[in-house]
Amino acid sequence: MSDKNYSYFQPPDRILLGPGPSAVDPAVLLAMAAPTIGHMDPATFDLLADIHDLLREVFGTTNDFTLTISGTGSAGMETAVVNFVRAGTKVCVFANGYFSDRLTDMCRRQKADIVRLEKPWGEVFSDDEAAEFIARERPEVVAFIHAETSTGALQDPAAICKAAHDVGALVIGDCVTSLGGMPVEVDKHGIDIVYSGTQKCLGVPPGLSPMTLSTGAVEALKARDWDCVSWYLDLKLIHEYWGKSRRYHHTTPVNMIYALREGLRLIHEETLEARFARHRLHHRALVAGFEALGMKMHVAEQHRLWTLHTPLLPEGVDDAELRKLLLETYGIEVLGGFGPLAGKVLRVGLMGSSSTRRNIVLLLAALESGLHAQGHAAAGGVQAAEAVLAAG
Amino acid sequence: MSDKNYSYFQPPDRILLGPGPSAVDPAVLLAMAAPTIGHMDPATFDLLADIHDLLREVFGTTNDFTLTISGTGSAGMETAVVNFVRAGTKVCVFANGYFSDRLTDMCRRQKADIVRLEKPWGEVFSDDEAAEFIARERPEVVAFIHAETSTGALQDPAAICKAAHDVGALVIGDCVTSLGGMPVEVDKHGIDIVYSGTQKCLGVPPGLSPMTLSTGAVEALKARDWDCVSWYLDLKLIHEYWGKSRRYHHTTPVNMIYALREGLRLIHEETLEARFARHRLHHRALVAGFEALGMKMHVAEQHRLWTLHTPLLPEGVDDAELRKLLLETYGIEVLGGFGPLAGKVLRVGLMGSSSTRRNIVLLLAALESGLHAQGHAAAGGVQAAEAVLAAG
Repeated sequence: MSDKNYSYFQPPDRILLGPGPSAVDPAVLLAMAAPTIGHMDPATFDLLADIHDLLREVFGTTNDFTLTISGTGSAGMETAVVNFVRAGTKVCVFANGYFSDRLTDMCRRQKADIVRLEKPWGEVFSDDEAAEFIARERPEVVAFIHAETSTGALQDPAAICKAAHDVGALVIGDCVTSLGGMPVEVDKHGIDIVYSGTQKCLGVPPGLSPMTLSTGAVEALKARDWDCVSWYLDLKLIHEYWGKSRRYHHTTPVNMIYALREGLRLIHEETLEARFARHRLHHRALVAGFEALGMKMHVAEQHRLWTLHTPLLPEGVDDAELRKLLLETYGIEVLGGFGPLAGKVLRVGLMGSSSTRRNIVLLLAALESGLHAQGHAAAGGVQAAEAVLAAG
Repeated sequence: MSDKNYSYFQPPDRILLGPGPSAVDPAVLLAMAAPTIGHMDPATFDLLADIHDLLREVFGTTNDFTLTISGTGSAGMETAVVNFVRAGTKVCVFANGYFSDRLTDMCRRQKADIVRLEKPWGEVFSDDEAAEFIARERPEVVAFIHAETSTGALQDPAAICKAAHDVGALVIGDCVTSLGGMPVEVDKHGIDIVYSGTQKCLGVPPGLSPMTLSTGAVEALKARDWDCVSWYLDLKLIHEYWGKSRRYHHTTPVNMIYALREGLRLIHEETLEARFARHRLHHRALVAGFEALGMKMHVAEQHRLWTLHTPLLPEGVDDAELRKLLLETYGIEVLGGFGPLAGKVLRVGLMGSSSTRRNIVLLLAALESGLHAQGHAAAGGVQAAEAVLAAG
């Protein structure tokens, strides 16, 4: 063994305003630090029952099949794919950002028959485009990203779900960056297979992926006569642990279960209505601030997420230098764009406990300094945001 | 939303002496509760570098390819399979317990060409049996369970690895219940693909799977010309995040990274030598106690794990009733056997921070009471254990 001395780790003091993880409430961190108990302990089963009920509230569903996957949001995406897509399954993907590309890659690995309808990053699909695409292709599975973390755009699920159900297809919806911050309304739209992550608007550390299946998806799962390539993500097996039989599958990350249950409890106390109103108001204030600083929004007004913002960098501003200043001088994490948006936008999250008036004011003030440091006159960001906040 | 009131969750006071999770040191729980930072934060990269180095010590390897999978030990098992086994790959499985069956199931889902050498649960394979099986079958991949959590048996890796390398096969070794509690010695034995879990002898909550690959396995991975069915568990992609490029793959569970780093730091401070000696001594003491209580060990002496014990229940003792008394009266979690060992054995873990003199004495005293409650005269367990502990 080496004789290196390892000291106790103290993380740097960060304000998390990137595309996730977001700030975690101290009550959630404390809940997570409670002593570990077993995954087959009756007390753990009580927690699973609470999570089941509380998740249904944030998903906007009465689906009995509601649980978590023991991995991050990407594990949820892969679970959605490998349980419903196999070699030859015809899948229609609405492709307008990085996460639809990732989902496409997962379908490709199953040797699915994939058809993509593509749009530039930051745009969304109209009702007519969605309906026409699905009616023409008649797929078995349709996939879309509700809240695209790479672009900041919100895709309306309604027309996609209706058209998919008209041809008997199941719909996969990625709600990683919307769940807990914006209405998802699984039942109202009829999204069949929905997954998210804990570390965005639920305000819980990364490590679990909440998931819910409609009656139609559950029927398809029950009728499935082929083997899912994954044992770890096989929903038939995972549901035996979450369902009445409480049959052992794998060792659930119990401390993450504590954390998620506490995060959902805080949401329940705040109420979804108040939480969505908070995210919406703060979104409007931040956008007003960006625009006052001369940063136009990449996404059209009616399609913007409240949770993740993509302001365009003013001409001549160096992305990496600006973000370095924010991180090193103010301890603020925001990320840049990537793919076609590399160097063009910032990605700024206001998710869960990160969505506060204080963070908006701090970020806009720091951005103003950062723009000045690169020789760009910019002013009035904070005032513009405050005006929106005051008007409510 | 429902108007149910959810109170803050306080887990019951448990002594974890089952097959995992084991007790988590308060320093690890506190480390985990530090504020979340981003997975692309330079401070997170420093933690990954520490974990890389500290994991190599417990694995007993200089493998550069050493990292964690963002899931539990079963995710590590699936990672080992899906990265090296595909349709038609000839796999030899040493099958002597539940976890080799799980691994077989994962290979079957890849449509591998599987050959199993089977033994009753609790037995292990001799050098000659291992060599003969592999030389006859000439597989591409060989898989064995180093420490079988379902039986309590330890499989010597030496002959398996030698025979496998003689025919050019890669060896998968499951070290979930040995890593951190018993020598694994990856390099000495030449195990190519090794995975474990955090919640056993590393003394960290469940949620990550440490993994290491030999040079031969890395070469095979690099030369792989087929698509791994899993994107989430694709080691080529995961290594881009852990390796020099630090390229984003998925959102690492950062608080679990804090916890693992602290757990490994504590092991480094204790030293592996002292830690293994502690596990071995406590194992011997517990066995002496079981035997004094009239509970014979299911596994032959030379093949017993120090970390997980399978004493046979005395004739006529009801397994469920005994465990219920231990849990409800003393807050002690031990689990029963399953499969062919259902109702026949207890599964008692002494792993990581759970492997203490106090726990041994408490369990033996509680077991004595539990056996009395079922009308079985039993005495002297504590004294027998104390005698071993005193002799050292």
